[in-house]
Amino acid sequence: MKPFEFFGPTRYVFGEGVTEQVGGVLADAGWKKVLLVYGQGSVAKSGLLDRVKESLGAAGVAFAELGGVRPNPEVALVREGIGIARNERVDAILAVGGGSVIDCAKAVGFGALHDGDVWDFFSGAAQVTQCLPIAVVLTIPAAGSEGSSSCVISNDELGAKNGTNGDAFRPRVAFMDPTLTYTLPPYQTAAGVTDMIAHVCERFFSGVGPVPVTDLIATGIVRALIEAAPVALDNPQDFDARANIMWAGTLAHNDIAGCGRSLGAGRAGGWESHALEHAISAFDTSITHGAGLAVIMPAWMRYVWREDPERFLLFGQEVFGIEPLEEGDEGFEGAGTARAWAVEATIDELAAFFQSMGMPASLDEFGLAPENIDAFCDLVAKARGEEFGCFKKLGREDVRAIYELAF
Amino acid sequence: MKPFEFFGPTRYVFGEGVTEQVGGVLADAGWKKVLLVYGQGSVAKSGLLDRVKESLGAAGVAFAELGGVRPNPEVALVREGIGIARNERVDAILAVGGGSVIDCAKAVGFGALHDGDVWDFFSGAAQVTQCLPIAVVLTIPAAGSEGSSSCVISNDELGAKNGTNGDAFRPRVAFMDPTLTYTLPPYQTAAGVTDMIAHVCERFFSGVGPVPVTDLIATGIVRALIEAAPVALDNPQDFDARANIMWAGTLAHNDIAGCGRSLGAGRAGGWESHALEHAISAFDTSITHGAGLAVIMPAWMRYVWREDPERFLLFGQEVFGIEPLEEGDEGFEGAGTARAWAVEATIDELAAFFQSMGMPASLDEFGLAPENIDAFCDLVAKARGEEFGCFKKLGREDVRAIYELAF
Repeated sequence: MKPFEFFGPTRYVFGEGVTEQVGGVLADAGWKKVLLVYGQGSVAKSGLLDRVKESLGAAGVAFAELGGVRPNPEVALVREGIGIARNERVDAILAVGGGSVIDCAKAVGFGALHDGDVWDFFSGAAQVTQCLPIAVVLTIPAAGSEGSSSCVISNDELGAKNGTNGDAFRPRVAFMDPTLTYTLPPYQTAAGVTDMIAHVCERFFSGVGPVPVTDLIATGIVRALIEAAPVALDNPQDFDARANIMWAGTLAHNDIAGCGRSLGAGRAGGWESHALEHAISAFDTSITHGAGLAVIMPAWMRYVWREDPERFLLFGQEVFGIEPLEEGDEGFEGAGTARAWAVEATIDELAAFFQSMGMPASLDEFGLAPENIDAFCDLVAKARGEEFGCFKKLGREDVRAIYELAF
Repeated sequence: MKPFEFFGPTRYVFGEGVTEQVGGVLADAGWKKVLLVYGQGSVAKSGLLDRVKESLGAAGVAFAELGGVRPNPEVALVREGIGIARNERVDAILAVGGGSVIDCAKAVGFGALHDGDVWDFFSGAAQVTQCLPIAVVLTIPAAGSEGSSSCVISNDELGAKNGTNGDAFRPRVAFMDPTLTYTLPPYQTAAGVTDMIAHVCERFFSGVGPVPVTDLIATGIVRALIEAAPVALDNPQDFDARANIMWAGTLAHNDIAGCGRSLGAGRAGGWESHALEHAISAFDTSITHGAGLAVIMPAWMRYVWREDPERFLLFGQEVFGIEPLEEGDEGFEGAGTARAWAVEATIDELAAFFQSMGMPASLDEFGLAPENIDAFCDLVAKARGEEFGCFKKLGREDVRAIYELAF
């Protein structure tokens, strides 16, 4: 078990109807005026935005607004929000939406307290140490941004999509009503669940050996997701399935599933699958992050597992009940092969689960072609350098080989 | 999944040598003077107290002192601490010790900001809404007070041992160095692990049906403890075993293992085993809380499991791999009996695990006798009323029957 710091200060208010509490909780926190940040229409259409505004009004909390946040939120809108936050002297930022809206709100929150340009935090020129308080009404469980120290912003001018991390902008309060997710399209539900499982796996396969308490929490979260997802896809209004997915999504990324699993300081894991996926969804921005992960992560696993088969055997055993073959079993050809069989079976099961939710099995299905691999490799190198990774160091030829496995 | 609020604001600084960071972290928090609270000698003898003082001194953090906290901390010492905290105008309270020391520090922290007597919070006359910041250097993993909203204080004059709960006094920072637990006697290690498992079980058997994500986290914590405890008992200096126990102890009681499992507002579970144990360790204060739980909890389980066998079957399956017998198995006498067998086997396994660590199997072993049961029942009624509990409502005759099973 490696040294770690864990800090999860978010107050989670979870259950049907919690949106009604927004105004009261924000007023109790002493926030008199907030900047309300939201997306491109669905929260307005569903009536949620009006309910939030009513709740704020009833509690005497004033608000300014920043709407129109797009998926992969762009720095220009963040800058606009920073201007509003300053001019209106807001006390806090209230995000109503999913990961993109929350990340935009976070960037406005720390950008507003920074003398220079907010991109400084994404270019590596500055570190976030302070932030206006962030509050969240979560509508899309996937990114885990409601509890995480992550923030990812795109810069169209530079052709970049960069992230920063900081405990200072972990949300202070998150309102989580699973019934708000009843109307999520199946593809988005499935991509969200895939992203959550990837958040756990990046930490589970971090290059650190067993940490039983953290490992069993991690595999427990994955099992709960594998159990709940088909139920939610089959009956989108199943409260318990939606609730388990929503809460699992928070725990998958608030770092509780990585305690003691970090090789160095900071978050556990090398985030190899995320890096490889970010390249393809940067290459073709129509690709949903979770759907990309459903293809990339199994490919990465097939390429790297020999670095530490025990991690994969543990994952397979805990999540899928897969045990290595024994002498006498069909297909047994010695202990080494029996273990290889169990690892391959584990990766196959995981990929099959993603596909059972409607996720793709190959990059083909996005209309990508092996000819694009050079471009993907360039994008990965630009974001992560010529060599990166914790479970196994990946150079350009490794990256190429993994992409080849993803076709 | 029931509605819940979860708030765990503690910053955990975990790993070998983290005590050296105490002064710096407290200074960074802006605390210029703290009240150092500790127990009856072991932290002084081990040199830990000196190291903490050195760290504070090096960082320019001044301190006053309140030593001599006993197990089952008493309100008189809390009042003394409140006087010191006020006179010295400290900014925060720093506990160096286990659950008793931390609880004393918490009570000083909220008592110092209260106009009336601190016992008001334990008699039910007042609710804690504010507290001086609490910091902790943990030396005994068991009570989970380093992350919890619990505080239990004794009042010798009234013959009472009462608790209060409040998010306001959850510690702001906890320094957790597993090597500080290398010197814990085996009995204390075992009693601590038993207490942790009880903290999880009180929430798991809360009267609420399945909440997969929380349930699998809960059983994962228990499994990690069952794996680590014999290793630590066998080799007290096994870092990984000590580290897993220490972190599991925090997660067992910071409420993450109870999210969505509460029948009403507040903490999940009826805390029946804790109530039954508190009576016997109030009757004979030489009884260690965890050792009492090792006897009481299995007895409670044997009495109540028929209220919801599924919960016990899930626990048995996840923690011990116990499946109900099937037709053809030896001992199978119909599905009902097969399930009863699996539940009994689960409770037997749990009790056997406690005993394997050196914990007692019967109240006999404490020198108690069935003639004491009336007195126990009176103490339970005094603390919890004539009827209490969530998994199954327990009246006086139920309580009596459970104690009978504990002999």
